[in-house]
Amino acid sequence: MARNKYPEETRNLIIETAERLFIEKGYEHTSIQDIIDHLGGLSKGAIYYHFRSKEEIMDAVATKMYSPSNEQLYRICRRKDLNGLEKLRELFRTSAFSPALKEMFSAAPDMMKNPKLLKLLLNETQTEAADMVQKILEEGIGDGSIRTEYPRELAEVLMLVSNVWLNPMIYHSSPAEIVQKLKFYQYTLKLWGLDILDDEVITSLEVYTVLYNQKKG
Amino acid sequence: MARNKYPEETRNLIIETAERLFIEKGYEHTSIQDIIDHLGGLSKGAIYYHFRSKEEIMDAVATKMYSPSNEQLYRICRRKDLNGLEKLRELFRTSAFSPALKEMFSAAPDMMKNPKLLKLLLNETQTEAADMVQKILEEGIGDGSIRTEYPRELAEVLMLVSNVWLNPMIYHSSPAEIVQKLKFYQYTLKLWGLDILDDEVITSLEVYTVLYNQKKG
Repeated sequence: MARNKYPEETRNLIIETAERLFIEKGYEHTSIQDIIDHLGGLSKGAIYYHFRSKEEIMDAVATKMYSPSNEQLYRICRRKDLNGLEKLRELFRTSAFSPALKEMFSAAPDMMKNPKLLKLLLNETQTEAADMVQKILEEGIGDGSIRTEYPRELAEVLMLVSNVWLNPMIYHSSPAEIVQKLKFYQYTLKLWGLDILDDEVITSLEVYTVLYNQKKG
Repeated sequence: MARNKYPEETRNLIIETAERLFIEKGYEHTSIQDIIDHLGGLSKGAIYYHFRSKEEIMDAVATKMYSPSNEQLYRICRRKDLNGLEKLRELFRTSAFSPALKEMFSAAPDMMKNPKLLKLLLNETQTEAADMVQKILEEGIGDGSIRTEYPRELAEVLMLVSNVWLNPMIYHSSPAEIVQKLKFYQYTLKLWGLDILDDEVITSLEVYTVLYNQKKG
């Protein structure tokens, strides 16, 4: 395969192949060599032309996985039939049930073994994701469904707790521990006036954690 | 200097020298070569015999910096004249005013550029630090000064918020942003029944953030 003739196609092929292998075998059990072996004759040099490391490939895979889910989240933000609080609840539900989350938990990278992935995730909680939640909180303040003097701070802490603390790829929680953590989160959200975490969401995340723990195995 | 004759002394000399340079020049502006230049003829090989990277040296420096402060924290835990809530308040105060924090902010490593340091820090919030806070919360439950059904979860979130979210080495907050974050934290702690964050602590952390932002330059 020519490496520079269709660079974008080569890049996509690498991402798709890696995604399939990560979901099948798990991230930790997939080597760069495995990916090469499934690329029909592409050289190691060609893969390193596009990605400097397996962590960089995983980052691109995650971006691809989450792209439809992010579209969905932006659609919720634009809805006119929901107030701020309802949008936030919908955002939590949609994230918890998204196929991306299931795929991610199947790929199951251990972020404590992959500090660069950890950094990328932590960066998101300070930027796009926090910005989106902050906007919804401000809408809720405007329409009276949410009361807080700290929309930015609350948005950042919500994202940090959701994406880092509740993440079994970082905090290696058992399914029972995840349920207990989600109950504490539900209780804390209510203290902030945000009754947005349904029991159904808790159950869904418990199931995903079982899946993750199996794949990580 | 012989490399293997007194390996422990060599290691300590590297740590002390690096600590001094990090505090003087800032971590980001200190290279491994700078450290070597101040070691009086020690070779690059000798330094790599003890540490694989600058991040590993910083980890050892941080351990050294925090060692007296950790001693102090353990002493607070053992005090008989304080109830659980009072111990927690004392723990927060002591951490906020500790020389280690000031030294760390002077060294000012940007954790988003040093994912391995980030990982080490995040690991602590799940282990020793969280265990210590959990124990104090349980004491407080026992003596009636603290009410929560979630001592483990609360301990982990307290450590995550304190050590990660409030950390200007990860979230690059301005001093004004840090003050706003601390006010949100103070408010949330009160919702949890933990009125433990004094205004003095807020002021101290604001000053340290000014220091950090100067050193980071």
